[in-house]
Amino acid sequence: MRMYDIIQKKKDGLALTEEEIRFFTEGYTKGDIPDYQAAALCMAIYFKGMSPDETAALTFAIRDSGDRLDFSDIKGIRADKHSTGGVGDKTSLIVAPLVASCGVTVAKITGRALGHTGGTVDKLESIPGMRTSLSEQEFVEIANKVGVCMIGQSREIAPADKKLYALRDVTATVDCIPLIVSSIMGKKLAADDDCIVLDVKTGSGSFMKTLEESRTLARIMVDIGNKAGKKTMALITDMDVPLGFAIGNALEVMESIRTLKGEGPEDLTQLCIILASSMLHLADRGTIEECVELVKDALYSGRALEKFREMISAQGGNPKVIDHFSDFGAVPEKHIVRAPRSGYIYSVNTAQIGETSLLLGAGRNTVEDSIDPMAGIILLKKTGDQVTAGDPIAELYTWKKNILPRAEEMFLASTFISDIQPEAKPLVFDIIK
Amino acid sequence: MRMYDIIQKKKDGLALTEEEIRFFTEGYTKGDIPDYQAAALCMAIYFKGMSPDETAALTFAIRDSGDRLDFSDIKGIRADKHSTGGVGDKTSLIVAPLVASCGVTVAKITGRALGHTGGTVDKLESIPGMRTSLSEQEFVEIANKVGVCMIGQSREIAPADKKLYALRDVTATVDCIPLIVSSIMGKKLAADDDCIVLDVKTGSGSFMKTLEESRTLARIMVDIGNKAGKKTMALITDMDVPLGFAIGNALEVMESIRTLKGEGPEDLTQLCIILASSMLHLADRGTIEECVELVKDALYSGRALEKFREMISAQGGNPKVIDHFSDFGAVPEKHIVRAPRSGYIYSVNTAQIGETSLLLGAGRNTVEDSIDPMAGIILLKKTGDQVTAGDPIAELYTWKKNILPRAEEMFLASTFISDIQPEAKPLVFDIIK
Repeated sequence: MRMYDIIQKKKDGLALTEEEIRFFTEGYTKGDIPDYQAAALCMAIYFKGMSPDETAALTFAIRDSGDRLDFSDIKGIRADKHSTGGVGDKTSLIVAPLVASCGVTVAKITGRALGHTGGTVDKLESIPGMRTSLSEQEFVEIANKVGVCMIGQSREIAPADKKLYALRDVTATVDCIPLIVSSIMGKKLAADDDCIVLDVKTGSGSFMKTLEESRTLARIMVDIGNKAGKKTMALITDMDVPLGFAIGNALEVMESIRTLKGEGPEDLTQLCIILASSMLHLADRGTIEECVELVKDALYSGRALEKFREMISAQGGNPKVIDHFSDFGAVPEKHIVRAPRSGYIYSVNTAQIGETSLLLGAGRNTVEDSIDPMAGIILLKKTGDQVTAGDPIAELYTWKKNILPRAEEMFLASTFISDIQPEAKPLVFDIIK
Repeated sequence: MRMYDIIQKKKDGLALTEEEIRFFTEGYTKGDIPDYQAAALCMAIYFKGMSPDETAALTFAIRDSGDRLDFSDIKGIRADKHSTGGVGDKTSLIVAPLVASCGVTVAKITGRALGHTGGTVDKLESIPGMRTSLSEQEFVEIANKVGVCMIGQSREIAPADKKLYALRDVTATVDCIPLIVSSIMGKKLAADDDCIVLDVKTGSGSFMKTLEESRTLARIMVDIGNKAGKKTMALITDMDVPLGFAIGNALEVMESIRTLKGEGPEDLTQLCIILASSMLHLADRGTIEECVELVKDALYSGRALEKFREMISAQGGNPKVIDHFSDFGAVPEKHIVRAPRSGYIYSVNTAQIGETSLLLGAGRNTVEDSIDPMAGIILLKKTGDQVTAGDPIAELYTWKKNILPRAEEMFLASTFISDIQPEAKPLVFDIIK
């Protein structure tokens, strides 16, 4: 088998066999197949696509390219969620304790991230003392004792994806559904969950700019999850506007705590309830409607917040941050952005708000970059809100004062104020089972 | 300017600017742009194409990526021809002395080649003593004195093409018209000719399998040549069957000598006359018809053969080979391939006959491979000929006796014998000016 022939075949629009896809994935992971051939194949896949069978084969080959986790020592049903990524998306921090407080285990291996803010692990690390690097034994013990544990990836999970994603990122082949699916699901399926709820974001802050693309992506991912023996469903949710008000690592943890206290933003709270209910539903705790009631009870009784507190303590973090945000540490002086004109916030370029957050220091450009946990943005007004010229619309936080003018300019350029009030959009567009 | 954006733009089907194309070509030649990004761009170009302006910009960027030759010390009008490559194509060896004997200079810098046989330089080197590596001063002196000189490339001509071609060769992006055009013309325009006749091959033994593709390729190349200030025209000629009877290095030189003696195969002789006439026509020696008469006179009077003899002597070769083929050296024993059935040779897979020649030792797979000048094939029957089962249809020559069974099998698999006589096809399909 020759990589040349595999490229040629895909270029000609033919379907690759499972053997060919494994040959490529394994050869590329080992370094036997060079980057330039992989790049040519990715571009050919971009133009010629992959059938569901090919996409599943690539997903499973990526899953099998490294270590697969074994959670069999963790008791009960294990559920997890995964978001395709959005700005201000801190749902994992809220959903995990919510689900755990309803008796379904969330043993989450999660990532750091490139982009506008860090990943869930980075966010958790803004809590003083919090350990996200645990031995597998500790992880299993906490998951069994508390019902929820969230750590960073230590073993080499899906190295094929790591290599391929880095390549796609520099060859303009990120926006390709079969490659997105196999990247997300290849990693996700290497973990050992029973149920997976996918949060597929749609709109200006996500990979998928249209609802139709998002539906396609969700359908393929759900089918592959089920094919791999996991109960899988997907929600298609709005990412035309950041989720909640906070963007940044500590800022998002604070907002998550507020949400677990029942005082969170409406959109974030609602989305967390539906995500958690879906996980419980997959774990056979009842209909979606019944599970919504379970989740609301856990949230508004304070049980979910207590579960979060337990998890922080178990992982070495300072649980006092829940009651005193000042325990997160010193916060840089806020810089207020004001509305340049009166009207309604008609739309925002969510990806560009993410870029602004990155510039402020909340995210990283390369894996070597360090993150400033306190940097970020608090939105004071969101799409649909009425503003008067001069009203504060956002607060920017950064220690790098010199970039503030550019950050403010970027933020303002991302916000379109109009005389017309936009129509309200649903938070959840569709559920794909 | 970022290579990423250039890939993205082409992927989206937009035209690249001249600056973007130069940025890529120069960056890739210097090694600042990695292979994987160049591979992604080539695949995007394969799918999205290039406009005539983009193709011209890429051609000129390739031309300018290395040394450009200066032939201003060579007297008179300088004409050259270039073939897109075919099996048994030894026309340069015949056309160059033909044209020179009509008073137009042919100062040819020519290549070695990968593939079924060597390039023109390799063929010339099968003449004992022949020097194809001369100083520029010697080259100019011989061109001025004899009117024709043919040497290998010494200076670094179009290094961008060398790198790009090697990359395309392993990423399945060879068969792409803008990339073919820029590769051929980028190198050709780095030489300093006044007139260029392109021999665009069409059919089973060439890059271009259909007449329509060949016409497109020819049109774009001619326009670019003229845009670069060279008088350029193209002939679209048949490569559905090897040219002449001989395939191999010394074997092709012998056939060229026979042709210059007026005893060559009909197809080869006719093609050389029309190519030479076209070169003279571009050099203002009259209409094509008038130039055909000049060329025929040079051929059948023996003047062209004498010119070839002069060139061999001037370049240190043994001119006696013209009169005594035994002076080429020892020839391996011939192996006769016989017709497996009676009928007409209906068609041949010319590329596969080329592969057979490569297997026999006449060509090279990698630049490091050495060529056996005596290896090759003599066709005894060609498309359209009637054969009786058991008739000799070809002779194979090689020192590697052990590969003969496989070579014979390949040769036979390339030859389709039918009860039906195929229709005769023209040798020259079209002339593009």
